[in-house]
Amino acid sequence: MENKVDLRSKIRTVPDFPKKGIMFKDITTLLQDANAFRSSVKQMMSHFDGRRIDKVVSAESRGFILGSAIAYELGAGFVPLRKPGKLPWKKLREEFDTEYSKDAFEIHEDAIKKGETVLIVDDLLATGGTLEAATKLVERLGGNVVGISILIELSFLKGREKLKGYDVFSVVNYDAEE
Amino acid sequence: MENKVDLRSKIRTVPDFPKKGIMFKDITTLLQDANAFRSSVKQMMSHFDGRRIDKVVSAESRGFILGSAIAYELGAGFVPLRKPGKLPWKKLREEFDTEYSKDAFEIHEDAIKKGETVLIVDDLLATGGTLEAATKLVERLGGNVVGISILIELSFLKGREKLKGYDVFSVVNYDAEE
Repeated sequence: MENKVDLRSKIRTVPDFPKKGIMFKDITTLLQDANAFRSSVKQMMSHFDGRRIDKVVSAESRGFILGSAIAYELGAGFVPLRKPGKLPWKKLREEFDTEYSKDAFEIHEDAIKKGETVLIVDDLLATGGTLEAATKLVERLGGNVVGISILIELSFLKGREKLKGYDVFSVVNYDAEE
Repeated sequence: MENKVDLRSKIRTVPDFPKKGIMFKDITTLLQDANAFRSSVKQMMSHFDGRRIDKVVSAESRGFILGSAIAYELGAGFVPLRKPGKLPWKKLREEFDTEYSKDAFEIHEDAIKKGETVLIVDDLLATGGTLEAATKLVERLGGNVVGISILIELSFLKGREKLKGYDVFSVVNYDAEE
């Protein structure tokens, strides 16, 4: 039996990072707490209980931390999405807008086989650009997106509007910049 | 009982990446294979069986993938080392030389408490610069390094010489550029 830790209380808000007016949600305080880290992984998986998941896909860098532990616990493979130039083999690319800038992610062409079931995992749902790019990369390879599991949702940024039709689950929500 | 997968056969060598003459060890083929990923985590932990480990420390980005799953399985906290400018709170910095360039990592000042036991995890031991910086950051915070667990060692680069006095364990070794 896992204790359900109050994860919100483990997240540190750092004002004005990376720029003035942003209340940055720092999850290092949560990750370094063994119980909170374990509970985060369990809670992020709970919504998808009983679904077959072949692969977990996460974007660098913070996404890797939660995605990898979830893949491990599910007994799934782990697929990293990386910034351009990092993956060494044949790959696909998707460009997207983030809360702060323009960016792109790449995936290896052999990372997902046609028909495999995929859970996309990230630490944060902000404007949704990263996660929308992740769904596109998975689907271009023929993968079926079972859902998207997020630790922290900033619902005031309305990222879910970019992810219509997907089963999006988040554990901790902030409905204002606080 | 875990099946002991032949992990070496799951690693893809990509010639001339990121530059001519380097035989890049691509672990994405291993990570996306659920059994190989799981077996990697188990084998990387096996050497440290029975040791108390409070925190697992890994450097971005690939290090996060194995470090996080090992922290989860051990029931330890996870501490990320990040490139300058990424961590939002009070931090320490260590500079180091890599196989390709100069770089630095940072750690939050509250990431490790004095006397906590730490396992450092990375995907690759090349020249040892990254891992030496990791030991310094942990020790500057008063942590005790139980050991260093590595998936792939490139022993011809003699990285262990920078890590004398530490219990360094690697699962797959390459003793020449191959």
